[in-house]
Amino acid sequence: MRTTVGIIGAGPAGLLLARLLHGAGIDSVVLESRDRAYVERRQRAGILEQGTVDVLRAAGAGERMDREGLRHDGIELRFDRKRHRVDFPALTGGRSVMVYAQTEVCKDLIALQLEEGGPLLFEAEALAVEGADTDRPRVRFRHEGAEDVLECDYVVGCDGFWGVARKAIPAEATRVFERTYPFGWLGVLADVPPSHDELVYARHDRGFALLSMRSPSVSRLYLQVPEGTDAEAWGDEEIWAELERRFETADGWTLQRGPITQKSVTPMRSFVHEPMRYGRLFLAGDAAHIVPPTGAKGLNLAVGDVVTFARALAHERRTGSADLLDAYSATCLGRVWQAERFSYDMTTLLHRAPDATPFEDRLQLARLERIASSRAAETDLAEAYTGFPFG
Amino acid sequence: MRTTVGIIGAGPAGLLLARLLHGAGIDSVVLESRDRAYVERRQRAGILEQGTVDVLRAAGAGERMDREGLRHDGIELRFDRKRHRVDFPALTGGRSVMVYAQTEVCKDLIALQLEEGGPLLFEAEALAVEGADTDRPRVRFRHEGAEDVLECDYVVGCDGFWGVARKAIPAEATRVFERTYPFGWLGVLADVPPSHDELVYARHDRGFALLSMRSPSVSRLYLQVPEGTDAEAWGDEEIWAELERRFETADGWTLQRGPITQKSVTPMRSFVHEPMRYGRLFLAGDAAHIVPPTGAKGLNLAVGDVVTFARALAHERRTGSADLLDAYSATCLGRVWQAERFSYDMTTLLHRAPDATPFEDRLQLARLERIASSRAAETDLAEAYTGFPFG
Repeated sequence: MRTTVGIIGAGPAGLLLARLLHGAGIDSVVLESRDRAYVERRQRAGILEQGTVDVLRAAGAGERMDREGLRHDGIELRFDRKRHRVDFPALTGGRSVMVYAQTEVCKDLIALQLEEGGPLLFEAEALAVEGADTDRPRVRFRHEGAEDVLECDYVVGCDGFWGVARKAIPAEATRVFERTYPFGWLGVLADVPPSHDELVYARHDRGFALLSMRSPSVSRLYLQVPEGTDAEAWGDEEIWAELERRFETADGWTLQRGPITQKSVTPMRSFVHEPMRYGRLFLAGDAAHIVPPTGAKGLNLAVGDVVTFARALAHERRTGSADLLDAYSATCLGRVWQAERFSYDMTTLLHRAPDATPFEDRLQLARLERIASSRAAETDLAEAYTGFPFG
Repeated sequence: MRTTVGIIGAGPAGLLLARLLHGAGIDSVVLESRDRAYVERRQRAGILEQGTVDVLRAAGAGERMDREGLRHDGIELRFDRKRHRVDFPALTGGRSVMVYAQTEVCKDLIALQLEEGGPLLFEAEALAVEGADTDRPRVRFRHEGAEDVLECDYVVGCDGFWGVARKAIPAEATRVFERTYPFGWLGVLADVPPSHDELVYARHDRGFALLSMRSPSVSRLYLQVPEGTDAEAWGDEEIWAELERRFETADGWTLQRGPITQKSVTPMRSFVHEPMRYGRLFLAGDAAHIVPPTGAKGLNLAVGDVVTFARALAHERRTGSADLLDAYSATCLGRVWQAERFSYDMTTLLHRAPDATPFEDRLQLARLERIASSRAAETDLAEAYTGFPFG
């Protein structure tokens, strides 16, 4: 089997890349180890930056998003029983975000790809990337019980943190940057209309809490829990009581309860692999970088990576110059590190470390007061939340 | 001996408070344990915020400052061999800072006080504050070999971190917030014109460095060194070579060397005592809070405290209402915690911790790139550097 761009992984990065290349007249093949039902069910992030929304629309994948997604013009910060709203359009010259689950983005992109794109093979497990430093990189994969080889001009690894693409880069060509956090998120889905129409980020002495939503009738709620917590150890009553404590305000705001339909714990990690390119193998999305979910940056970073790659390859096809391809890693990493910084800052602003000192508690409150009282500090946050420009 | 306000300590806080009270027609006595020559020689900070400059002028202590002080409209951040200037007036609507050494401020205030103020007793060592929770607080002190008592309506402790005032507050009425840093500053004075006309804050893999000045012919330079370093362990040649390394730029900037006339090591600490008032005893300046010197906030915080106290007491005299005196601690602490936050942020932005991870190094660079590329982030820094409004 032979193609121009071999794409490993049919998450949002791989699927969107296939669309963008299709739009530029460049053929590709997408290999996905799981089946279609699994991919369409995977629960992940759900906040799309303005730039991500624009790219999905331009790629023809905006129709259902524009119909069912919820445009959000701000978030609420809650601390010390007070509430402060950050108004995105007012602070950023009109930018906002869209609440539309990653899993829905994937469904839309899969439908488009099957309708009018190149091959998208489910249950096609990439086994290895070979010859990354040659002109003819190959992906060995297993499909329908047999091993096969995909011969490519370029391979893009969109196969996540555990995928095979990153493993094809020799350790001596690699630098890895990591940070773990001594807590995770217990996330629940509940069949109840969200108690607030925008996301609420709460800093509390008992830990962070986040109110989010999947739709006008489904709430998504999170609680900071110690690292290694088993989701099943938390009873529903206990979850609601803890959420109520952490969201409590002086003005008597109330949280609506409802049936909890799903519970899971997400670990928190920061990770960057440098460089994001080795020969003709390019890494995109979680294969190259992980952010803690507090800044809602994971999906948006992946989109930025594949937009950068698609533009660079189209430029090469049009002009013969590999300049943009050669700049891929540096271009992406500038944006990646800004997102890593912002995600780290949002995480440490709002979570309580198990060994937090009273000084650190006061620092958190002083930071939140600063955001609530300085237009400059608030704008800095709003710019980062609504998204850094694509390279 | 009897007075309205007993002031312990003739640093800038105590001396300025005496002036402000004198201007409001309220009598005071200042007790200072050291002799005049010592006080006029004590080397400390030298960056006055816009608000501090305004207060000193209004108090009649601005004449020499305006003649000899150096108005600075910005600072330079140096990282990754690059230079970025932060333009204060452009970002803050016209605010700037003044480079004028604290020791010069003290000389000016002492001269004024001796000329037309109330008693200022040198070599008068405060031994204890008594009856802070009564209507008649007293300061026991030793002067010219004999013990004496100063009876007051109010006592203000401007006697620094090691002074007696804070010790008069019972532990059960107190909360203390602290942070130490595993490094200090090796500071030198050198008889050479400063190599740059504004302060240069350098972040380097080998540690922080700061270029500052005392006058157009005297440079003040600092190097981050490990906690507990002996200043004499550093030879002059070694100091210049290390400064050159840390200030190095891609554009060939050079550091002018000259004879080093003084060397010392400053430890780094963050400290806040809450509340800043107990009965009729008020704490101001370093007696209540310490910041690491990176943000140049120590002296300016002390000025904010005594301005707040003088206004509150004048208000009480004029209206009979103790509201502002009762609000003293909360009013000051709002500003104190913003300065603690900023000083902590500037310190962690620019210093390299001995156990810094590669991830943290990249975070620092991403923060500096953010300041250099976002007007909002840069404005946040400029606002804080030029000063938070007095309560």
